[in-house]
Amino acid sequence: MNMEPLHLTRCSINTATLGHREPIDVTIDRIAKAGFGGLAPWRHEIEATDVRRIARQIRALELKVTGYCRSTYFPASTQAQRVANIQSNVQALNDAAELGAECFVMVVGGLPEGSRDLCAARSQVKDGIGALLEQARKVGVPLAIEPLHPMYAGERSVVNTIDQAHAIARELDPYHDGFLGIALDVYHCWWDPQLEGAIGSAGKDKRILAYHVSDWLVPTTDLLLDRGMMGDGVIDLKGFRQRVENAGYAGMVEVEIFSRDNWWKRPPDEVLQTCAARLQSVC
Amino acid sequence: MNMEPLHLTRCSINTATLGHREPIDVTIDRIAKAGFGGLAPWRHEIEATDVRRIARQIRALELKVTGYCRSTYFPASTQAQRVANIQSNVQALNDAAELGAECFVMVVGGLPEGSRDLCAARSQVKDGIGALLEQARKVGVPLAIEPLHPMYAGERSVVNTIDQAHAIARELDPYHDGFLGIALDVYHCWWDPQLEGAIGSAGKDKRILAYHVSDWLVPTTDLLLDRGMMGDGVIDLKGFRQRVENAGYAGMVEVEIFSRDNWWKRPPDEVLQTCAARLQSVC
Repeated sequence: MNMEPLHLTRCSINTATLGHREPIDVTIDRIAKAGFGGLAPWRHEIEATDVRRIARQIRALELKVTGYCRSTYFPASTQAQRVANIQSNVQALNDAAELGAECFVMVVGGLPEGSRDLCAARSQVKDGIGALLEQARKVGVPLAIEPLHPMYAGERSVVNTIDQAHAIARELDPYHDGFLGIALDVYHCWWDPQLEGAIGSAGKDKRILAYHVSDWLVPTTDLLLDRGMMGDGVIDLKGFRQRVENAGYAGMVEVEIFSRDNWWKRPPDEVLQTCAARLQSVC
Repeated sequence: MNMEPLHLTRCSINTATLGHREPIDVTIDRIAKAGFGGLAPWRHEIEATDVRRIARQIRALELKVTGYCRSTYFPASTQAQRVANIQSNVQALNDAAELGAECFVMVVGGLPEGSRDLCAARSQVKDGIGALLEQARKVGVPLAIEPLHPMYAGERSVVNTIDQAHAIARELDPYHDGFLGIALDVYHCWWDPQLEGAIGSAGKDKRILAYHVSDWLVPTTDLLLDRGMMGDGVIDLKGFRQRVENAGYAGMVEVEIFSRDNWWKRPPDEVLQTCAARLQSVC
């Protein structure tokens, strides 16, 4: 492999990595001070404060917003709730635009309460994304469908592979004017036997809008909150980035680690320094 | 849907469902007494006793052996260890033949210690299965590759989808004389966006050698030992069986539940009665 080492200006921190323990403006200052080129904030952080003020802070620090996390889940038991979910996403898209986000991250949702109908839920997801696409174009923020690991199919996402996300994007947006693509996260996709072809195909189609890194720990003790720091697990991170870059992706590399019992207990600056070191050595 | 209700004579109990708390001969008697038509024992149970005696007991009770669990993992860091793993599987195949097992269940193994090379591990798996196939033909026990859920790709199985298992079977055994196929487990595969096509294709090719049921709980609290009783989770079990039967599978339905904190704490006869009731109502 013959890749450029990652410069921190190409790297971004998803604020979940720090455990959401401090107000967003403090977090933003820490990320900038540590030398990163961007961040990806969460709605509950932004919605708790004044989005315009935060947007000004981000611009003043010359940080990129590599994604705005995340969509309200689409599937629901009633039509009224599905409409409300889309409406909630329209609102979030406006904030994403205010923040200058490079994409709005679509974590699409799992099965509605009491349902076992994956097919119906997937159909509702497609309808929901379709309904949101016009607003995305209007405010200038692309939608990035994030396929989640199959272990989240019940509760969090019925979109579980790159190929599946790509198929939705092609169907809803066949002429591709840049507002519907995919957020690739190594944690969700690393196991996929179709990985190489799926990345190549998505990249050729210019659908890769974001690239997230962390690591898969062996053993993993919690389905949601036990992601590893890059280098501490079994994902071939350099190999993954090589594939993504071979497919034409030249954007930012975003760190997103949910780690309740380890990294979320450490001082935020230690976490950031470790991310910086690992991004430049093992990613 | 218009399926035959399951008769218990078509149903089998994987002994893991009872938590391996009693000697295998006691377990076998319980399963027969509860009216099931078969069982799937584990090697550590059989290897702890006299395989011929157990085989006689199973024949006397007219139980089918729907699978023998399970292969020694194939991937390893050294060639010597890989050869030893195959040899261990040859030995187990002999016991499977003695038991009259309908298949030897191939849980193929994850990444070797310290490795991040999925591609190499998958190649080692293919080589290992290939090396075992002649012995399978010789003793008359088909090999059933079981794709495991992607959350096990690190530690337990680098074969993670039906299509992937099917491709291995076709490559190693293009003329298909009946000794290399797939064990389908709803727990591992239910989320797959390609499910319907994958089952149809494997069935058309007469590769489905076993069908396992349990349920996916929401939430799931442990990656390995928190499977649900059929009906307690979100898997569309009737829909899954319909697909499997539409694909030509007319074999047994095997219950395999790992449930450390729930079912493994209940009296074995209660577990068996619950399995019987659920198999006949929700499967």
